[in-house]
Amino acid sequence: MIKVKVIGASGYGGIGIIELLLRHPETEIQALVALESVGQPISDIYPHLKGFCDMPVLAPDSPAALEPADVVFFSTPDGVGMNGARAELDKGAKVIDYSGDFRFNTVEEYAEYARRIGKPTTHADPGLLPLSVYGATELHRSEINAERRIVGNPGCFAVSCILGLAPAAAAKTFRANSVICDCKSGISGAGKKLNAAFHYPNRHEMMNAYKLADHQHVCEVERELSLLAGEPVVVTFTAQVVPVSRGIMSCLYADLVHSISEEEMVGIYREFYKDSPFVRVFPSSAFVGSMHVRGSNYANIVVSIDQRSNRLRIVSHIDNLMKGQAGSAMQNMNLMCGLPETTGLDHPGFFP
Amino acid sequence: MIKVKVIGASGYGGIGIIELLLRHPETEIQALVALESVGQPISDIYPHLKGFCDMPVLAPDSPAALEPADVVFFSTPDGVGMNGARAELDKGAKVIDYSGDFRFNTVEEYAEYARRIGKPTTHADPGLLPLSVYGATELHRSEINAERRIVGNPGCFAVSCILGLAPAAAAKTFRANSVICDCKSGISGAGKKLNAAFHYPNRHEMMNAYKLADHQHVCEVERELSLLAGEPVVVTFTAQVVPVSRGIMSCLYADLVHSISEEEMVGIYREFYKDSPFVRVFPSSAFVGSMHVRGSNYANIVVSIDQRSNRLRIVSHIDNLMKGQAGSAMQNMNLMCGLPETTGLDHPGFFP
Amino acid sequence: MIKVKVIGASGYGGIGIIELLLRHPETEIQALVALESVGQPISDIYPHLKGFCDMPVLAPDSPAALEPADVVFFSTPDGVGMNGARAELDKGAKVIDYSGDFRFNTVEEYAEYARRIGKPTTHADPGLLPLSVYGATELHRSEINAERRIVGNPGCFAVSCILGLAPAAAAKTFRANSVICDCKSGISGAGKKLNAAFHYPNRHEMMNAYKLADHQHVCEVERELSLLAGEPVVVTFTAQVVPVSRGIMSCLYADLVHSISEEEMVGIYREFYKDSPFVRVFPSSAFVGSMHVRGSNYANIVVSIDQRSNRLRIVSHIDNLMKGQAGSAMQNMNLMCGLPETTGLDHPGFFP
Amino acid sequence: MIKVKVIGASGYGGIGIIELLLRHPETEIQALVALESVGQPISDIYPHLKGFCDMPVLAPDSPAALEPADVVFFSTPDGVGMNGARAELDKGAKVIDYSGDFRFNTVEEYAEYARRIGKPTTHADPGLLPLSVYGATELHRSEINAERRIVGNPGCFAVSCILGLAPAAAAKTFRANSVICDCKSGISGAGKKLNAAFHYPNRHEMMNAYKLADHQHVCEVERELSLLAGEPVVVTFTAQVVPVSRGIMSCLYADLVHSISEEEMVGIYREFYKDSPFVRVFPSSAFVGSMHVRGSNYANIVVSIDQRSNRLRIVSHIDNLMKGQAGSAMQNMNLMCGLPETTGLDHPGFFP
Repeated sequence: MIKVKVIGASGYGGIGIIELLLRHPETEIQALVALESVGQPISDIYPHLKGFCDMPVLAPDSPAALEPADVVFFSTPDGVGMNGARAELDKGAKVIDYSGDFRFNTVEEYAEYARRIGKPTTHADPGLLPLSVYGATELHRSEINAERRIVGNPGCFAVSCILGLAPAAAAKTFRANSVICDCKSGISGAGKKLNAAFHYPNRHEMMNAYKLADHQHVCEVERELSLLAGEPVVVTFTAQVVPVSRGIMSCLYADLVHSISEEEMVGIYREFYKDSPFVRVFPSSAFVGSMHVRGSNYANIVVSIDQRSNRLRIVSHIDNLMKGQAGSAMQNMNLMCGLPETTGLDHPGFFP
Repeated sequence: MIKVKVIGASGYGGIGIIELLLRHPETEIQALVALESVGQPISDIYPHLKGFCDMPVLAPDSPAALEPADVVFFSTPDGVGMNGARAELDKGAKVIDYSGDFRFNTVEEYAEYARRIGKPTTHADPGLLPLSVYGATELHRSEINAERRIVGNPGCFAVSCILGLAPAAAAKTFRANSVICDCKSGISGAGKKLNAAFHYPNRHEMMNAYKLADHQHVCEVERELSLLAGEPVVVTFTAQVVPVSRGIMSCLYADLVHSISEEEMVGIYREFYKDSPFVRVFPSSAFVGSMHVRGSNYANIVVSIDQRSNRLRIVSHIDNLMKGQAGSAMQNMNLMCGLPETTGLDHPGFFP
Repeated sequence: MIKVKVIGASGYGGIGIIELLLRHPETEIQALVALESVGQPISDIYPHLKGFCDMPVLAPDSPAALEPADVVFFSTPDGVGMNGARAELDKGAKVIDYSGDFRFNTVEEYAEYARRIGKPTTHADPGLLPLSVYGATELHRSEINAERRIVGNPGCFAVSCILGLAPAAAAKTFRANSVICDCKSGISGAGKKLNAAFHYPNRHEMMNAYKLADHQHVCEVERELSLLAGEPVVVTFTAQVVPVSRGIMSCLYADLVHSISEEEMVGIYREFYKDSPFVRVFPSSAFVGSMHVRGSNYANIVVSIDQRSNRLRIVSHIDNLMKGQAGSAMQNMNLMCGLPETTGLDHPGFFP
Repeated sequence: MIKVKVIGASGYGGIGIIELLLRHPETEIQALVALESVGQPISDIYPHLKGFCDMPVLAPDSPAALEPADVVFFSTPDGVGMNGARAELDKGAKVIDYSGDFRFNTVEEYAEYARRIGKPTTHADPGLLPLSVYGATELHRSEINAERRIVGNPGCFAVSCILGLAPAAAAKTFRANSVICDCKSGISGAGKKLNAAFHYPNRHEMMNAYKLADHQHVCEVERELSLLAGEPVVVTFTAQVVPVSRGIMSCLYADLVHSISEEEMVGIYREFYKDSPFVRVFPSSAFVGSMHVRGSNYANIVVSIDQRSNRLRIVSHIDNLMKGQAGSAMQNMNLMCGLPETTGLDHPGFFP
């Protein structure tokens, strides 16, 4: 059995990976670590786990928390993983970090990201950056292998945008400076931290855009799309919150270089994802919505061409806590451990 | 592998058992039968199932629908199972019916139930009634065994009330004519049938009581509690709908015969359910809510004594589509097939 | 014009009275006072008010906040009004307090209430208690007149229970120790204070009961019903939260002394409320829900008799922020100012 | 008093104008007409109106429904107004139609619209088309005057897009073929008609795009923006539904011809709307959301420039049932009756 440590176990990202680990046939949870709720059984914080996982939350400096593990998830905010990853790596663990700490391979890229979230632009452990790979599994599958020691799990909005535009970018079908990502997220994307904007009475019936000036996920999206397109892609990115708990729906637009039919574009997408079990591609006539990926690791991608404006339009749906976070993390863990990519993840979610 | 047929596959009760069957290690789905959507893959109706279950919906009279199966779920409205069960039994199947058709063992009891739902009071196949057992698993476990051929799965509200009051009834702690069941359900309890009362704009922000005169679930509740108490129990029952999709929270009240402490009563409950893996008992100080059983087969029961009025107060939580429907149905199937009760059901649900 | 000061202007109770004052033909807002957001226009905190009310929030000790007003609303938590009311009264104001500070006329009653909310049981200004009247307008209309200087506005749950049972209590139709109040509230009832239980992802799809041991509103309910019944009424009270923003639905139960038809009981209720413009009485066959009083000052009361158990069952609906708070406060203000009770309140709310 | 007839009174558009008329100081409701619920008091269908408006719903051919009125609202689906307007005009009424029937002045434009909704492309009363004016009040105020007999009230999505881009179009700041309208609506926009997509359990937690091929509102948006820009504007339009009851949030994108600062653009917008009392313009740093216009006739428009891509981005918020429907209709009625534009509409809505 693969022994797993979860750092940041008491947040939504932590509970997400715990739920998945409980279903995974090859793992066992060794330690749950967090700054808050230390000493409490995790099932006191998340009572649905009573009888399934009653392990106590450990303080980061407790002896049990410091024991070596095979895999360590840093389900933690920006700035934690970069300070803790090396110690875990030195103890032999493979590390998967949820934050932006290891999504970039150079200090310059990291600095640009950090600036957008108001963090110090100096990375705490720059030596690790070249060792990390960006955990958009579908694009970096070959690099996320049994030799890989560290993965920077992608941002939730970023996953929806990158998966949504990757095939079109790789096929060089759109103008590089014409990309718009209009992204709507459920509220769990902001985590369990209390915030007046997410207080129920303030939020039900509320839609709003935020961080119009500068959302940090645009860095990942532009980097990945540029790599695929072979030229610098510039993205206009609009983050929005709507009153659902789980789910991201991103509408993605780009001006086509040449005229192309929807049917051809669907073909390009299906070919691109033919070996990616968690991506479903649909034509524009399909009825597809965010509830159809709720609780699962799937990305449902609708391909549409607006012929009148010769514009590509993609509607990309994921569960922000699954494919957008814990699901991708487990998918990456599987590959890093030499397991089939779908192990523990081959579930359809639930309805209604 | 146990071959399973689901009749009424396209409703919420059908999709519930399909989701569970896909996780069950000992079953395979043989046929999905419904009146609507015939010929369509079930994954067109419930797109989250794409790749997991793409079987077509069969018409009830199609040859494939008529093939014998090991287990048949009638996930159908009142009146269907009573007309179809015998044919399935004759082909060798075990039958679990979701409706009120087989919840009673006499034509008189059935007539009283049928009257309350405005159906003909004559049962279509009275000979089967004595063969059936009421599928409140925790109360009738010994009768739901490998010899049992037919089970009448309980009503969702009824499960919450019966599990909530059974230990106190069995211990003869309350006055038989003092029981009040104040029950709040999520909207999925009404199924997928369109109704102005469940149209989103009419329903968000809406709480209401309904069927004040005569809700049919009271029959089951009174029958079961009377059996346990050894005297006729009369219940005032109030059905309410609140804007959640899944979940039932029932507040149950009864006047105590003698003074008793909460601690003693918690003890009575824990003893009563000591061999029931899906019931959790809590003292009144615990934080327990309907989300803590969402997606799982658990009943979370809070025990409280109002000392000032010498009254028992129970708050009982279930997922109406799980313990209140498909989960109980699978639990019963397990026992009827000689499997451990928890097979395929040992999941905590999900959060948030 | 009546000059009005709102203390505690930045909470939901404050915004509620501000919205009403903006529609009231005889009032003008003189000062908005709060501890938080001092200096900010109220329309920065509640942007829907931009152009309607852009007055700044004043610190309690600022000169403008200390100017005398004709009416002062203490839209403040327990313990504020009792320390500030006398100064306002001395300046000539009429005072309406939202908290429990002035709901009782004796220090003993107050102490019992204070104990239940964990506050000091000594009232800060006991000399004012005999001068106050309980602001359940329909029951104390004659005492809430132009001579009245101070009113203790009732608790939101309490309004729903008291209005729901008052006619039956006054007619001495039920046993005094048989009353159960099963009350469900929307989340705005807990105010704007952040709380993990009201964080959107934790709350959508969540129903739960709370304060099972001892909810403070029971004091008011028992006091008022006892006065009407002419004997001590004991109440079992269950507070619950469901995921709506606005609304209270209380199911109220009591054992009838004599048999009575629903029609007779409806008659008793209609007679009792014949001069109460904000109470609507319905038979049990009516479709009535919380959305039908959303945004209005109405109480919609459904009368039902459970003949089988000879029990009265009332379903009482109010908007917790209107009839349960600001609406009642304005209704009381009108009477204290010699205006028709409905001034500024004759609005139906909105749908959907 | 202005006598008003509402045709299509029982839908959300009907109830919206009824609520507004009840607050309007210069109008009285003369007749409520609908095909459904004939004979029922409107307050049976919408119980919040009990005591405010208990008029019965009249059949369209009943004598009382045929009486002349001063103003007639056709709150009806496409195809009704074009068949009924002339009779009302002949009786002397002013007509405001909610559908697409009178939004265009030529049969060719109408045909293009009708094609997109699958209706006959021949207008039933083409002679009226040149007499109508498009009811985007802020753009056609001078034409919506006391001489105007007929107005085609705009589509809800269209209002949000047109108001959001009009100033930039008039200032010729963007490329004509670069416009993208990414529009999210609440569910009430689809009316009260039952639909599986709007059944509560299917819809809570659901976001989806629809009519990707061809949404009919694009016709109005392109026509109005083209008029302002002085050249043909082509729009990519994406209609989406999210689980709120009321509200539209449209993100609007266009490539700037020249570089311009956000501050300058805000200035252009404020100047354009300086005489429009229902439009509020905000810089991108403001916290603005759909709840801030809920229940009011306001459009809240956030101006943002994405400097990196030299792209204009507008976030436009309205209440789809107010500024997107009944509110605009009343605003137009006021101008057609020589009243101040804001009569009966100067309300901030409500929160939370």
